[in-house]
Amino acid sequence: MWLHASCLLEFNIPVATPFLLMLRPRSGYQQWVGREQYVLSPSVSAVEFTDPFGNLCQRLVAPAGPFSIQTSVDIEAADASDSAPGAHFVPVEQLPDETLPFLLPSRYCESDRFTQMTSSIVEGRAPGYDQCSAIVEYIRNTIQYAPGEGQEIISACEVNEKSLAVCRDMAHLGIACCRAISIPARMVVGYLETLEPMDLHAWFEAYVGGRWYTFDPTQDNLQGGRVAIAYGRDAADVAIYSQFGDPVDLLRMEVSVERMSAPSY
Amino acid sequence: MWLHASCLLEFNIPVATPFLLMLRPRSGYQQWVGREQYVLSPSVSAVEFTDPFGNLCQRLVAPAGPFSIQTSVDIEAADASDSAPGAHFVPVEQLPDETLPFLLPSRYCESDRFTQMTSSIVEGRAPGYDQCSAIVEYIRNTIQYAPGEGQEIISACEVNEKSLAVCRDMAHLGIACCRAISIPARMVVGYLETLEPMDLHAWFEAYVGGRWYTFDPTQDNLQGGRVAIAYGRDAADVAIYSQFGDPVDLLRMEVSVERMSAPSY
Amino acid sequence: MWLHASCLLEFNIPVATPFLLMLRPRSGYQQWVGREQYVLSPSVSAVEFTDPFGNLCQRLVAPAGPFSIQTSVDIEAADASDSAPGAHFVPVEQLPDETLPFLLPSRYCESDRFTQMTSSIVEGRAPGYDQCSAIVEYIRNTIQYAPGEGQEIISACEVNEKSLAVCRDMAHLGIACCRAISIPARMVVGYLETLEPMDLHAWFEAYVGGRWYTFDPTQDNLQGGRVAIAYGRDAADVAIYSQFGDPVDLLRMEVSVERMSAPSY
Amino acid sequence: MWLHASCLLEFNIPVATPFLLMLRPRSGYQQWVGREQYVLSPSVSAVEFTDPFGNLCQRLVAPAGPFSIQTSVDIEAADASDSAPGAHFVPVEQLPDETLPFLLPSRYCESDRFTQMTSSIVEGRAPGYDQCSAIVEYIRNTIQYAPGEGQEIISACEVNEKSLAVCRDMAHLGIACCRAISIPARMVVGYLETLEPMDLHAWFEAYVGGRWYTFDPTQDNLQGGRVAIAYGRDAADVAIYSQFGDPVDLLRMEVSVERMSAPSY
Repeated sequence: MWLHASCLLEFNIPVATPFLLMLRPRSGYQQWVGREQYVLSPSVSAVEFTDPFGNLCQRLVAPAGPFSIQTSVDIEAADASDSAPGAHFVPVEQLPDETLPFLLPSRYCESDRFTQMTSSIVEGRAPGYDQCSAIVEYIRNTIQYAPGEGQEIISACEVNEKSLAVCRDMAHLGIACCRAISIPARMVVGYLETLEPMDLHAWFEAYVGGRWYTFDPTQDNLQGGRVAIAYGRDAADVAIYSQFGDPVDLLRMEVSVERMSAPSY
Repeated sequence: MWLHASCLLEFNIPVATPFLLMLRPRSGYQQWVGREQYVLSPSVSAVEFTDPFGNLCQRLVAPAGPFSIQTSVDIEAADASDSAPGAHFVPVEQLPDETLPFLLPSRYCESDRFTQMTSSIVEGRAPGYDQCSAIVEYIRNTIQYAPGEGQEIISACEVNEKSLAVCRDMAHLGIACCRAISIPARMVVGYLETLEPMDLHAWFEAYVGGRWYTFDPTQDNLQGGRVAIAYGRDAADVAIYSQFGDPVDLLRMEVSVERMSAPSY
Repeated sequence: MWLHASCLLEFNIPVATPFLLMLRPRSGYQQWVGREQYVLSPSVSAVEFTDPFGNLCQRLVAPAGPFSIQTSVDIEAADASDSAPGAHFVPVEQLPDETLPFLLPSRYCESDRFTQMTSSIVEGRAPGYDQCSAIVEYIRNTIQYAPGEGQEIISACEVNEKSLAVCRDMAHLGIACCRAISIPARMVVGYLETLEPMDLHAWFEAYVGGRWYTFDPTQDNLQGGRVAIAYGRDAADVAIYSQFGDPVDLLRMEVSVERMSAPSY
Repeated sequence: MWLHASCLLEFNIPVATPFLLMLRPRSGYQQWVGREQYVLSPSVSAVEFTDPFGNLCQRLVAPAGPFSIQTSVDIEAADASDSAPGAHFVPVEQLPDETLPFLLPSRYCESDRFTQMTSSIVEGRAPGYDQCSAIVEYIRNTIQYAPGEGQEIISACEVNEKSLAVCRDMAHLGIACCRAISIPARMVVGYLETLEPMDLHAWFEAYVGGRWYTFDPTQDNLQGGRVAIAYGRDAADVAIYSQFGDPVDLLRMEVSVERMSAPSY
């Protein structure tokens, strides 16, 4: 399916402030960028680089005053993400080199503290995809999805002590559990067509059966078009914007995702 | 200035054929991508990767039948490329690691065969930028720029034996001479606003005075907006399309570049 | 000065176990590897790859039974690490791209939680090197260095609540504070010639004045030869060994560092 | 088997001269570095970086006067390189991204000029490994291997016009032919245990059947331990030393490779 997705950020900047942005989705597996737009108002010079995870990042200094960033994309996405019950566990010694950093604990995914808990969650499940499914079920059963409640990013340990979390933090818990049983897992931030209420979304991917598969503790199934904007170890790596210096208020953020017909332009 | 640039390629494909494309300019030094479009007709699945030079490359299999690729971009570019007469030569031991591959000879830039000739071209010039300028003058004085004459790519040695060449091949000669005197030099393929007749263009960059500078043997000056699409060692690295298997005819290629007012969208 | 440094690890492996090792120091700034040795007993096949931080990593499956890893290196190192009181703060927008990941919070360096504390630590200090020095003094004054006490890795937040820490965890606190004031900081694990008692050591580097400088909260000064073995965001990235599956006991670990005369071999 | 391999280079340097060296073999597929030594006399400061092909490269400025580089390695290598008659051709669209640069023509491998010739060489052979074997047979039958005759590096086109060539240039021809039929091929420079007379050696690898395989037009079979020192597109990428500025004479070069028993140190 074709999707039109957009994100608007509006700030009032008290003093010129450096920003790091991650708002340009790339063509990749199951997504092809047909059209893309990135508007800075006022127009300021910006440079782009590729971070260690392959994300396109934009650097700029926002001038004092009102400042907005408006990005949009027309993208072809799959109708549903692939699933593969039964896909096998890949022994660590056979994992591709580039998946190994996703086995390590990270800022919000303290996988080193989840070995015991995960063992009991996945007990009796076939190693691999089915273990990941058990982890997702566990999260869905124990943590209440509370979109809009998550100003402060919290880690897997903190999620685990709470009954409420947003998508991003539920993903942290899923990632930490996967890594605890030697399954590489990574964070994805992006758009999900069917999300209610509409917002940016976060989920995770786990490497089983020889490739990355999508898991989303907030959704009953994997229906709906997804657009990955950025990949990383956890929320620390995939902030759609980071600003440095004195904190700047985000006045307004608007996200939309709509189906569209195949573009002819 | 803001530019709207576009490139249309039309093929008639006899049998399904793998392509490698390089048609998505990136935001970078002196250029910011405000809007971008990439349309395949018919729509086929494609994947993208970053090559060793940082270019975004698209891979796809073109199906049998008519096939077209239409890309366009709204981009903010400088009014003129920076120049820096007198900028110093950077001794090899102080060059950044990432510039070193651009000192080596490559397919179409046999720099190992240009040591003597280049010594005589740059005689008496200050090491660095002024040597590059002398090389560009030499090319302009000895090779006639003949846009449209260059179906087959030719190398610096071959250009040097001829009196006619296209932009790409003149760049080959410039690059070979720079490398022969230990100045890193790289190929750029892109759009040039003021080009007559309009087409894709090629020029080169040399690393002097601590950064890359633009040189263009086909132009009297560096006025006019430029959009870099791809960087590489020579034309072998920056083909906007490569196809594999039996040769496929390009039926039509249309390039346009126009000034536009700053977009508001 | 020339140093001979070695590290011996002995395990008793209950069942074949995958390992990831980081025990091959590279030649780099202020260190040149003259001779190096890496012995696995029993000899098993191993492969090597470069991680995202540039570290050489070894992968292998340790067979059941006694297993040892013995590495050593003859390396030329500086007599003391460079220091540069007064070196300036580099504004975020001028930082090289590759330093940016070292501004983000990471597993053991929750820099997002140290903004206020760091502001008060560095109050009145010139931005840059002198702020880092203030952070190091603060750590030295408030945390007692207790080599040998640190089985479990603890994070900057946890260190800050304790009065005792090992070198690694003191580095975590230093890194978190630097990042909290937008100074890139990274973990180093390596050898230090003058360490008492001898062991592997950990310290950190901060990016100020246009380059990385060494800081070590455990030492009064920067005298003594240092050998960097691995760089990363924190201890999660630079474990000299990681093993997967059921925990394996380290029976014995021996580290030695000695001055030697320049080798002639 | 375990091999002890060494390489000695002696120069007389008229004036301080920057060098780029590639003399540190890495552990990799079918080779494990157990001990390694790298001695510069006189001792000068050197830095190391990883080039785009993953080779460890050393940079230094050789001082005026006698200067020598002595490297040696104890390495575990396979008794013979793998062969796989019948291994299938990998369609371009299924090739891993990182193999794609090895499809392009390069300085000494003008694959764009070998399409017709290669078609006739491989006629009737199954696509993939068997085509590569046909190319190797063709080279062996038409080009006489003349070790020691090859001061100047020559390209595939030039080899093809001659009756004599050294290993490096025979590899150029093999690589050019493979690429001409869309098989990725790369140059390897290294040690070969059984080489007569002993010297550094060069061969090539082709990507078929889902991995890289060794091909060597100079040898009747693939027996004998091999140690890869560097990989690249052709000889331009894998010079064991490059020097810049006025040419410097190599006074002496000594290479040795001997079997040894497994080291215990």
